[in-house]
Amino acid sequence: MPTTTRAFGAPSAKAKLEPMTIEHREPGLNDVAIDIAYAGICHTDVHQIDEAWGGGIFPMVPGHEITGVVQAVGPGVTKFRVGDRVGVGTYIDSCRECENCVGGFEVYCTGPGGVTPTYNSRDRNANPNHGGYSKHIVVDERYVVRIPNELGLDVAAPLLCAGITTYSALKHWNVGSGTNVAVLGMGGLGHVAVSLAHALGAQVTVLSRTLNKRDDGLALGADHYYATADPRTFTELAGTFDIILCTISDSVDFDRYLSLLRLDGTLINVGAPEDPITLSNWSLITGRRSYASSGTGGMPETQEMLDFCAQHKIAPMIETIRADQINEGFDRLRRADVRYRFVIDAATL
Amino acid sequence: MPTTTRAFGAPSAKAKLEPMTIEHREPGLNDVAIDIAYAGICHTDVHQIDEAWGGGIFPMVPGHEITGVVQAVGPGVTKFRVGDRVGVGTYIDSCRECENCVGGFEVYCTGPGGVTPTYNSRDRNANPNHGGYSKHIVVDERYVVRIPNELGLDVAAPLLCAGITTYSALKHWNVGSGTNVAVLGMGGLGHVAVSLAHALGAQVTVLSRTLNKRDDGLALGADHYYATADPRTFTELAGTFDIILCTISDSVDFDRYLSLLRLDGTLINVGAPEDPITLSNWSLITGRRSYASSGTGGMPETQEMLDFCAQHKIAPMIETIRADQINEGFDRLRRADVRYRFVIDAATL
Repeated sequence: MPTTTRAFGAPSAKAKLEPMTIEHREPGLNDVAIDIAYAGICHTDVHQIDEAWGGGIFPMVPGHEITGVVQAVGPGVTKFRVGDRVGVGTYIDSCRECENCVGGFEVYCTGPGGVTPTYNSRDRNANPNHGGYSKHIVVDERYVVRIPNELGLDVAAPLLCAGITTYSALKHWNVGSGTNVAVLGMGGLGHVAVSLAHALGAQVTVLSRTLNKRDDGLALGADHYYATADPRTFTELAGTFDIILCTISDSVDFDRYLSLLRLDGTLINVGAPEDPITLSNWSLITGRRSYASSGTGGMPETQEMLDFCAQHKIAPMIETIRADQINEGFDRLRRADVRYRFVIDAATL
Repeated sequence: MPTTTRAFGAPSAKAKLEPMTIEHREPGLNDVAIDIAYAGICHTDVHQIDEAWGGGIFPMVPGHEITGVVQAVGPGVTKFRVGDRVGVGTYIDSCRECENCVGGFEVYCTGPGGVTPTYNSRDRNANPNHGGYSKHIVVDERYVVRIPNELGLDVAAPLLCAGITTYSALKHWNVGSGTNVAVLGMGGLGHVAVSLAHALGAQVTVLSRTLNKRDDGLALGADHYYATADPRTFTELAGTFDIILCTISDSVDFDRYLSLLRLDGTLINVGAPEDPITLSNWSLITGRRSYASSGTGGMPETQEMLDFCAQHKIAPMIETIRADQINEGFDRLRRADVRYRFVIDAATL
């Protein structure tokens, strides 16, 4: 018994997004039906519609930074009630039985088919899943988080991907007091990472192409701000960082950045580049360094991140747009022309 | 006041090695003069003479797995006396003032010019340093280690590079009881790594191209032995290892091996490949994995490794050769035809 809702999606690969009506299931035993309030636009959404990472399921309704209010719950739901402020992130199902799922690391599910992305995926009945550029979504409560009252639903939306991705990496690699962290890229992920790393007690340096966003970076908690277009940055900062968090989705000269790490430093790339990455092994050997990457985060950690942001008054800097501005938003995102995250007001869908 | 000694070296790049007479300094204040007993042949020696990593200083006398007996000491030497059994590894000097040197991580020296390799380098007076394919060497005592009496000078030689390189990586990445480790490559480094990882309490799997060396691997302490030429190895072992220690100096399909790591696993490459390495970032993201590399080890750690090997009765499997077999040894090493390390008997020089 599917029901329908208004949405905004791409009818085919690389197409412009347009209004459409989509179907979703009625809430089942453990499902939460959510009236969507806001959906962030993640760079992944552009990649998926462009099929940059492989074939897509069309029509495709993107969006995996979703906030809203619970409209109905299935009879087995225990965590949420109608009216609760909730969020949905980058995935909505997993096997729930593998070691990683049991441990609360659902994003790293090793069950058959792995984790189920919020859109451009199929549910257990093989129906396509649609994302947050929509009025309505139905998700199993295990994959729904609570938005603390201190966080607006609009600014909370980007935390569901940009926030948890950077928080999870910073926490896993033990960023805290005494850690010297560089955030590479001052965009959707980067600007949240600055706030998070600062709140975790680290010394934070932004490495951005230019100094154009310097004031914002310092306001968000950065201690230092350097332009990577200036070669002096690489001599001055050589061998100084414990951690470099790369938030750039394009290819990067990794050897150049690895030289900025001190002994035992780690470059964590959460930018998800499309092409294979290349680096010289010598860039690692010479400082016992690591190149690493991580996904968004497990469900318990996602809730922890939201609570942390509420406690530390961390909110992404957003630009709220109407549904009819989504295509323009995509174009501007391709040009990195956004400070720092577009958030769609679902009331305009 | 230089003095001379007999040696075996390459007169020019890519040339055959031949007997030659070289100069070295008289022992200074803190120097130890060593009568060399044995020198291991490391794959690095082939790379250096081939100029695979860049320009070399010729004539070049290779060798950085050196054992022998102290013949004379400078007046400032406190750690060694004439007659002591000693070893010299992959470097013989460093700035001694940077944070890494002070911390005992001399191999990662960040001072001007960095660490000074045992050969194909210049000393503080700009004279060329010559390695262990020689009757005699003079080294500052800081860069000399003691060979425990339990270890023969012949089998101890390969520990100074193959041993410390693998020991340092295994220790730094916390390999011990409960760790599931794969050793990739059953050669000079790999076969020592098997013994070390086993002695550290880990569960050890060898990944070798074929099963030809299986008996040796199991005898050295491996719990399992798989052929990488068999595709079933990659399905059967998917997602199972905490650590993969890659000891292969050729290029490897890293994505394939990264898929064998479980959540938070690390592939440590101590094989020092000549070409840049390429991998898909997705191979890391999907399991929060790391690709890392490390050098040989600091001086305190090198002594610790030798003491550990003495305590656990770990000795490389070697093939002792005469000086006039060195060129044949190089040829066989290029074909990976050695079980598992050539060691030159310096008495034949």
